[in-house]
Amino acid sequence: MSKTSINHKQKILAITGGVGGAKLALGLSKVLTEDELLFAVNTGDDFEHLGLHISPDIDSLTYALAEENNQELGWGRQGETWQFIESLDALGGESWFRLGDKDMALHTHRTQLLNSGATLTEATSAITSAMQISHTVAPMTDAPVRTIVHSDQGDLAFQHYFVREQCQPAVTGFSFNGLTEAKLNPAIEAWLEGCTGIVICPSNPYVSVDPLLKLDGFAERLRNLPVVAISPIVGGIAIKGPAAKMMAELNVPASAQAVAEHYKHHYPGLMNGFVVDKTDAIEAATITNGLKIPTIVTNSIMVTLQDRVDLAHATLGFLRDLAP
Amino acid sequence: MSKTSINHKQKILAITGGVGGAKLALGLSKVLTEDELLFAVNTGDDFEHLGLHISPDIDSLTYALAEENNQELGWGRQGETWQFIESLDALGGESWFRLGDKDMALHTHRTQLLNSGATLTEATSAITSAMQISHTVAPMTDAPVRTIVHSDQGDLAFQHYFVREQCQPAVTGFSFNGLTEAKLNPAIEAWLEGCTGIVICPSNPYVSVDPLLKLDGFAERLRNLPVVAISPIVGGIAIKGPAAKMMAELNVPASAQAVAEHYKHHYPGLMNGFVVDKTDAIEAATITNGLKIPTIVTNSIMVTLQDRVDLAHATLGFLRDLAP
Repeated sequence: MSKTSINHKQKILAITGGVGGAKLALGLSKVLTEDELLFAVNTGDDFEHLGLHISPDIDSLTYALAEENNQELGWGRQGETWQFIESLDALGGESWFRLGDKDMALHTHRTQLLNSGATLTEATSAITSAMQISHTVAPMTDAPVRTIVHSDQGDLAFQHYFVREQCQPAVTGFSFNGLTEAKLNPAIEAWLEGCTGIVICPSNPYVSVDPLLKLDGFAERLRNLPVVAISPIVGGIAIKGPAAKMMAELNVPASAQAVAEHYKHHYPGLMNGFVVDKTDAIEAATITNGLKIPTIVTNSIMVTLQDRVDLAHATLGFLRDLAP
Repeated sequence: MSKTSINHKQKILAITGGVGGAKLALGLSKVLTEDELLFAVNTGDDFEHLGLHISPDIDSLTYALAEENNQELGWGRQGETWQFIESLDALGGESWFRLGDKDMALHTHRTQLLNSGATLTEATSAITSAMQISHTVAPMTDAPVRTIVHSDQGDLAFQHYFVREQCQPAVTGFSFNGLTEAKLNPAIEAWLEGCTGIVICPSNPYVSVDPLLKLDGFAERLRNLPVVAISPIVGGIAIKGPAAKMMAELNVPASAQAVAEHYKHHYPGLMNGFVVDKTDAIEAATITNGLKIPTIVTNSIMVTLQDRVDLAHATLGFLRDLAP
């Protein structure tokens, strides 16, 4: 353990998906400057809807970093209203995806930028800048990658599964259209040069993190860097989203340990450390000793901003301890 | 004058443009059934904006007929909110065209329908049906016709002149891109069979009515039908919109008489009757005797619903009196 590195400059890449990951992302952004932290974001959830390019994970992160996320709903934008979607519904339009009036502005602006020839990276940068976000939010790729959920009701585009069908279909697996051809965002590739550690935020391993790790040999590129993941499963349940339900349907125990096993099995040698909630202290010992992944126990249920900052500190401290 | 025709079934075509015309349109819709009245609407104001197909005149009529028009603003939809456009503005998006949150639903739905292969006529029908409008709202054509305003600041797309530049540039003339190739809406053509009269609502003669009358020989097709126009100019001012300002810039007196002269000059023999407000009683005599267009005087300033209905009755009675 190289405690001396504490005072060295850090250069952290945080991998994040939806709302859960975005909570820790905000914590990290309070602890590290924009020269020390870059976000690599899943775009497998992206879809085209009502003529708009919608990037739910980028938006969850954007709203979280701008502290504009809707605390009451747990998703979407603060101070949101619903006149658009209710009027669309009354007209007989497609209203299952609950687009808020303010949220519509972001999707419309992004779509305009993309249609004007901007890459998703450039469009995201324009939006985050306009929202006074100093950290770089890097889509994993500028190419279209689309998560497909295989289920007992057939193959479903991710948002059809997630929002339209409200995660009711039983999952049998996942695939990622376009992943093979997609190139890693050059901004992420460049950040890996001199990078001091990778944080995999508490996001869904199957649909938020896997698309990133499987993209363009990304997991292999991380092999020589300290990588720490935070379990999105606490006490057998997912803090947010369908991860636990998916695990049950895939005949995997819904546990932090199973998340660690997933990463170990699919990306051997990748994970250098794992973070679980204190609820799962017993599992932590099993993961450390059985799976040989050093695991720390902390509070990973982020209710307040301080919780987010505390988990960021704990994770970054752990990463430093793991550094060679 | 064939008073006997009062009890005969009427089949009226009403030509209408923006908000002023839509007021009388509502009055007509209260007096005539959907078997007796069809609306032919200007689409020269249409434009593509933020990826949406926007049809301002169709929408003004739609909101008026649904009694969903915004009485406070004088345009747009009742109970409107502005979260979308304010958020778009904050993001640095194009926010000069004030799209309300509810209004966005209509544009989005229309655009979806058009992108799915519907004609503008079909999309309009779907929207008016959903809004419980029984009368047919027929776009003048399904082809793109775009009004260009020639001005001292160059050529401007109509909405750029009208909304973005707030009618500030001095007008020197108009042209209508696509007009030569456009075909009259077959629903309008079919309605002319057995049609008993034409009402030209109090709309801007240059940018609301001319595009229709110039389209695909439409004015010629009306030659054998009684045609009555209501002056949009009252006491030398336009009740709504830039008509009077345009007339001044075109070196035409801003008067009801000049509107009648415009129609007489450009469409000889078309106009069988003219309706002016009581403010313009003296002009009425000049139009009747000088221009040889029989002109009636009534209240044409429509504040209440009853005003709209009264003007509809007066206009329809006049049309019947003019019938051969």
